[in-house]
Amino acid sequence: MTRAFPDTALAADIAAGLARVETLFESQLSSDFPAVNDLCRHVERYRGKMLRPTLVIVAGLAFTRDGEALRSEHDIIAATVEMIHMATLVHDDVLDEAEMRRRGETVNFLRGNETAVMLGDYLISNAFHLCSRAGDPALNLRLGEVTNTLCEGELVQLSRRHDMSLDENTYFEIVRRKTAVLVGASCELGTRLAGADASAVAAMRKFGENLGVAFQIQDDLLDLLGDEATVGKSIGRDLEKGKLTLPMILHVANTTGAERQAALRAIESKDGAALRRALERSGSIDAARAKAVEIVEDAKRGLPATRRAHSRELLLELADRVVARDS
Amino acid sequence: MTRAFPDTALAADIAAGLARVETLFESQLSSDFPAVNDLCRHVERYRGKMLRPTLVIVAGLAFTRDGEALRSEHDIIAATVEMIHMATLVHDDVLDEAEMRRRGETVNFLRGNETAVMLGDYLISNAFHLCSRAGDPALNLRLGEVTNTLCEGELVQLSRRHDMSLDENTYFEIVRRKTAVLVGASCELGTRLAGADASAVAAMRKFGENLGVAFQIQDDLLDLLGDEATVGKSIGRDLEKGKLTLPMILHVANTTGAERQAALRAIESKDGAALRRALERSGSIDAARAKAVEIVEDAKRGLPATRRAHSRELLLELADRVVARDS
Repeated sequence: MTRAFPDTALAADIAAGLARVETLFESQLSSDFPAVNDLCRHVERYRGKMLRPTLVIVAGLAFTRDGEALRSEHDIIAATVEMIHMATLVHDDVLDEAEMRRRGETVNFLRGNETAVMLGDYLISNAFHLCSRAGDPALNLRLGEVTNTLCEGELVQLSRRHDMSLDENTYFEIVRRKTAVLVGASCELGTRLAGADASAVAAMRKFGENLGVAFQIQDDLLDLLGDEATVGKSIGRDLEKGKLTLPMILHVANTTGAERQAALRAIESKDGAALRRALERSGSIDAARAKAVEIVEDAKRGLPATRRAHSRELLLELADRVVARDS
Repeated sequence: MTRAFPDTALAADIAAGLARVETLFESQLSSDFPAVNDLCRHVERYRGKMLRPTLVIVAGLAFTRDGEALRSEHDIIAATVEMIHMATLVHDDVLDEAEMRRRGETVNFLRGNETAVMLGDYLISNAFHLCSRAGDPALNLRLGEVTNTLCEGELVQLSRRHDMSLDENTYFEIVRRKTAVLVGASCELGTRLAGADASAVAAMRKFGENLGVAFQIQDDLLDLLGDEATVGKSIGRDLEKGKLTLPMILHVANTTGAERQAALRAIESKDGAALRRALERSGSIDAARAKAVEIVEDAKRGLPATRRAHSRELLLELADRVVARDS
């Protein structure tokens, strides 16, 4: 994530932090059983942007005093949020019957749903165990709350599959829960562990949550419009699985008559090409994209003053990248 | 579990403890979303023997001083271990494609695999959150270790499906991990929270682990021999899913020639009736049953002195019931 960023001292701190996180991640998952280690090595290949651990570290660096280093708890929390994220990827791929993830095959495709379910459980369990190693009950409590919320978001989304009456408010509530709270907690905990005051912690959580929502809208757009080779994972899963995403919801809300019917028919018959045509014609794709950009601008405006100026610039850059990415 | 037990004061303490555990369990899972609450209510119907919370409470009562009450942490841990157990049931039913559980339909049968996967995750997450509410990092660390081990056991078992070379040692290692460590931790933590010394805590963990292993052998026998109406859940799943259980392993190890071949063929063709005939003829079912009884006797012999005599009698009775049950 530090590519092209000018401040080399900061870039080196972040790279060193992420390297420690990778080491911690791998050592936490090491098992006496080769069969288990093979699966974990496969999952480690899914690591890509490392958005969540990067946010923990950058938020931490933004609020530590000059000359102070990050705490070991920063590394633990950064590795924990990444492990929680990996667990959700493995289980999401089961839910979506996805075959591809980060240009590799998914665990469910390669080894069956049963192994993918249990491997996801192993990752969740290890995430909580790793977090417990910090010895701070408040961290366990907060992350437990976050994963409760995350699972609720997923359960509500499942209960609303194929539901054409899903409205924008409910969509945002689902996305906040299933994606944004974990990104928000990454910023929040990185900041809190650096000893920042409560208002900075709250503002950083809000910044992260906004990033998470924008990230999910961008993900939805890539699932609808991207090509598998660029995105690097199975696409078209939302339509296949009856998940109404923001462009579809905006179209259904803002069009009438034949225009609305054409999209509904395309959703029902899972005709991606027809759906894209209808959504483009009505401007719903542009409207969803504009919404994501608006949320990122909100995030940037709400970013609190940091102790280190360079970290603040990097957080602004990270925010922009969330909607600029094509994979 | 307290039926027919003579000490009424103890029975009342246990009943009160289990009632508190049920309240805690339900309040922990209460969600803002009716769809989530409906699923949790369905899962609460699976609660049957409540072996694990009963062991936390009885172990706690066995080591508290006369006149002292259980700590609130006992209730939290008792509800937590039950919630972990429920999560494994929900995911096991996905793995086993089971349709019936405690005389009701399974979540996967009723609502699909996706919802069952996510509901299991919600239960795991809530179990860790609930445990964190005790505010004692050692409890989180210990239960994280237990669930890591549990998932490893399941993953190794999955990797050895349809493997006719699975030997007795590996079988016991899998069972220890996937079933026994949680039962052992229930006894261990109940005892530790009552302030017992380290040797009593270790002995109680060993007692629980032995009970867990015997419990699993009995479960395997019921899956092989029981009828669905009595057992109350889908049976024959081990054979269907290629899981070699103790009677099959003993038969393969101790017979030769046509006798051995008949069982291998029955396993391969998933012919339950032929398999039962072969295993009965070779004495492998009786041998597995004898092994479970031997482990229970071991458990009882190793039971440490308790502060309260009545609780010790009850623990001995609970041990016997593990192998006497037909559901």
